[in-house]
Amino acid sequence: MARWEVSFALERRAGVPLFQQIARAITADIRRGRLRPGDALPGTRTLARALGVQRLTVVAAFDDLVAEGWIVTERARGAFVSTDLPDPAPRRFASGGRSAAVAERPGFDLLPAPAPELPYDVPPGALLFAPSRPDVRLAPAALIGRAFRRAIARRPGALLAYGSPEGHPRLREAVARMLASTRGIAAGAANVCVTRGSQMAVSLLARALLRPGDVVAVEQLGYRSAWESFRLAGARVVGVPVDADGLRVDVLERLIATQPVRAVYVTPHHQFPTTVTMTAGRRLKLLELARVHRIAIIEDDYDYEFHYDGRPVLPLASADPAGVVAYVGTFSKVLAPALRLGYVVGTAPLIGRIAAHRSHVDIQGDRVLEYAVGELLDEGEIQRHIRRVRREYRARRDALASALVDRLGDRVTFTVPAGGIALWVGARSLDVEAWAAAARSRGAVVITAASFALDGRPRPYLRLGFASLDVTELHEGVRRLAAASPAENRARS
Amino acid sequence: MARWEVSFALERRAGVPLFQQIARAITADIRRGRLRPGDALPGTRTLARALGVQRLTVVAAFDDLVAEGWIVTERARGAFVSTDLPDPAPRRFASGGRSAAVAERPGFDLLPAPAPELPYDVPPGALLFAPSRPDVRLAPAALIGRAFRRAIARRPGALLAYGSPEGHPRLREAVARMLASTRGIAAGAANVCVTRGSQMAVSLLARALLRPGDVVAVEQLGYRSAWESFRLAGARVVGVPVDADGLRVDVLERLIATQPVRAVYVTPHHQFPTTVTMTAGRRLKLLELARVHRIAIIEDDYDYEFHYDGRPVLPLASADPAGVVAYVGTFSKVLAPALRLGYVVGTAPLIGRIAAHRSHVDIQGDRVLEYAVGELLDEGEIQRHIRRVRREYRARRDALASALVDRLGDRVTFTVPAGGIALWVGARSLDVEAWAAAARSRGAVVITAASFALDGRPRPYLRLGFASLDVTELHEGVRRLAAASPAENRARS
Repeated sequence: MARWEVSFALERRAGVPLFQQIARAITADIRRGRLRPGDALPGTRTLARALGVQRLTVVAAFDDLVAEGWIVTERARGAFVSTDLPDPAPRRFASGGRSAAVAERPGFDLLPAPAPELPYDVPPGALLFAPSRPDVRLAPAALIGRAFRRAIARRPGALLAYGSPEGHPRLREAVARMLASTRGIAAGAANVCVTRGSQMAVSLLARALLRPGDVVAVEQLGYRSAWESFRLAGARVVGVPVDADGLRVDVLERLIATQPVRAVYVTPHHQFPTTVTMTAGRRLKLLELARVHRIAIIEDDYDYEFHYDGRPVLPLASADPAGVVAYVGTFSKVLAPALRLGYVVGTAPLIGRIAAHRSHVDIQGDRVLEYAVGELLDEGEIQRHIRRVRREYRARRDALASALVDRLGDRVTFTVPAGGIALWVGARSLDVEAWAAAARSRGAVVITAASFALDGRPRPYLRLGFASLDVTELHEGVRRLAAASPAENRARS
Repeated sequence: MARWEVSFALERRAGVPLFQQIARAITADIRRGRLRPGDALPGTRTLARALGVQRLTVVAAFDDLVAEGWIVTERARGAFVSTDLPDPAPRRFASGGRSAAVAERPGFDLLPAPAPELPYDVPPGALLFAPSRPDVRLAPAALIGRAFRRAIARRPGALLAYGSPEGHPRLREAVARMLASTRGIAAGAANVCVTRGSQMAVSLLARALLRPGDVVAVEQLGYRSAWESFRLAGARVVGVPVDADGLRVDVLERLIATQPVRAVYVTPHHQFPTTVTMTAGRRLKLLELARVHRIAIIEDDYDYEFHYDGRPVLPLASADPAGVVAYVGTFSKVLAPALRLGYVVGTAPLIGRIAAHRSHVDIQGDRVLEYAVGELLDEGEIQRHIRRVRREYRARRDALASALVDRLGDRVTFTVPAGGIALWVGARSLDVEAWAAAARSRGAVVITAASFALDGRPRPYLRLGFASLDVTELHEGVRRLAAASPAENRARS
């Protein structure tokens, strides 16, 4: 057994205590194989002399090493490298006591990734007609910053502690009041579970409702991200067509006749992506079908607040004595995308299930933010903000519509929707994919119907979001879009 | 066909526009069956006269009803209730235009709920020896409030918008630097995914790694909430015993010989709940086993910051050239439970998978909070806070230990751990469940070993958390605990 020699120098100004430096040097030597199981270490006096430190410093280092199992001490005989250590191949550990960088590849097999929700790829300087984004420039940043700080300052103990996964009672109550007064949903706080935006709401519903193999009927065209949540829960997603009156409930009825359907996912207010509002007749039929067949209706009302002409249609959840609707709403569109705050409304037993699943996802929400937003709702601040934004978005909708008529009137068709944050634009005989590609190179990014299709195949439509661009940007965007249209391209070439 | 008569009065001061009141009253009558599909409505002039409003007000109401599909108008013939409506049974909808309360029971079948992570049931005035809670009274509330408001005020556009699911780059970089300088993990920002606390980290790892039927080996005793995350992903959880040196890696090796094991979940630093530190020999064997069998090691280092004596042992992740470790850490224990902020560290491909799953759970984190905490890390504020809290917790550990020796020295055994936030207390010959029940009635809530067992069976141990009670409370809590112990109960009765 070769005698181990000190091969390191202590750094007295390194900020790391000397005893730690000694312990680290010894473990490094064990790891690189210079010290092997059973090897004797020098005595504490000898080592202290060799290093020029107090003996107690070496004793402290050895105590650490014993506590961690690197060495054992035997009374009178001294210290030895533990024989409980395997004999590591020297090069598998970095030398010099420093750890190696994290490996490049995992040492185990990864499952296939779900289709990711990637941010749109927008070239610098390009204008994105984002299908469902609000304008973050209108977000009430100062209001939220103040409310957050005020809440944490006044109630630090209550708001920073663990709380219930359903969300802070103040926000649950404020949401229930808001839904009762504006959407005809007579919910109590017990019917509300606060979530991190509507994405978490849909994801939790998927977990609470779906078993592998269950069928979920969805709107086609529709919202791909919700489909992926259902698939991640093992469900099979089946498309039901949408026409000018909303979901084809008659087709859904035929589907139900052929196989059990566990849930239906709908956006009846401003259908995503086509913007149509489901008619009252379809709504009543859908509720009745769900009641009879015990099907859960997941009603995603992602942009209820943005309605400009006439009265918004009340949600399905406002006429649901059978308890078949799980209603999803969000503040992320009216406040800011990065403030993930949404909710599920439903029967108390459903809310209990959602909460149980939620506790396993992230324990609970951000109680400070929840309380702050509850306070802003009670004070009417959020409602005032919504009214301001609604006026602005209405002007943007009208600006986009008239710009399209002016510049592309002969090449596109659309109906101006009474609400929402996008126009659904038919491209007549144009090849939309080629047009979108040409527009992209001219600095206008548009999302085509293929992104909303279960089969991913092209269809001659675009969803032109108008909420995240101001009136000037919308005009410029449409100018670029028109310049990229095949007719003008042809005229120029 | 009976002639429909106006049966409602308008409220001129209700704050609801008159045309909306008219439209609502008509839909209410359709819903309750007073108006049926095909019924004629009065002309706009007649109705305006009956209600004492301008004709245009009624026209606006009808326009709304047409747009929503409740009625149809035929030129020259007038307006009719749409025949596209089904014939609803009158009592299924609430009368009077107001919606019914949310139903009590769901109209569809709910799946069994996962075992919920419920807050402990603590009677008023009782002291809870919480197994893994920090003291929210020490949370740096003012610091966080200021940092949040500062971040949102300075960078509203950048922080309130959509961002990448991996978290804000500033926090990812700050975490990577912190891990490199204090834990020997040479991670770059690309190796870090920010999560909502360690719960979301484990939940995302479960989704990214596990297929139904996969086996996950876990410490037994161990952390029930992690087990539930694995089970929710369809995995089978198999317990491996823990002794004074940590996980019995030899037992794990025998398990691997009999069946494929996909992942191992460990808390090697301060094992939960027993507080033991896994020895170096076991660590090296575990890493080697994982490398050879391509097993993912989920290393949950939930309380790394709280180490009091000697040098904390470096994580498994600091010696992982094979890329088998997914390392989980959290700020929720050092800052505040309600600020859900944690991270996964691993190979870049693993981080990509985690991020893809994360985007389907809640899109992204709270970028304002992420940026604010990144800034506080860069400024050293969080490190200063940790040092303050660490001193306090050390004093609490020592106070609990000496109180136990003083009052219960003959009835309990324990080893003072070098770190962590709890003592693991053996109860000798006492019936711990009876003792815990008696203590509860005397105002001391303790969590027994049964809570940490796969089989839920009692074992003669308690996990006495000391972090969430101050020194005075710890003394009082131990007094109550001693008063409830069978020996003293017997002496008194």
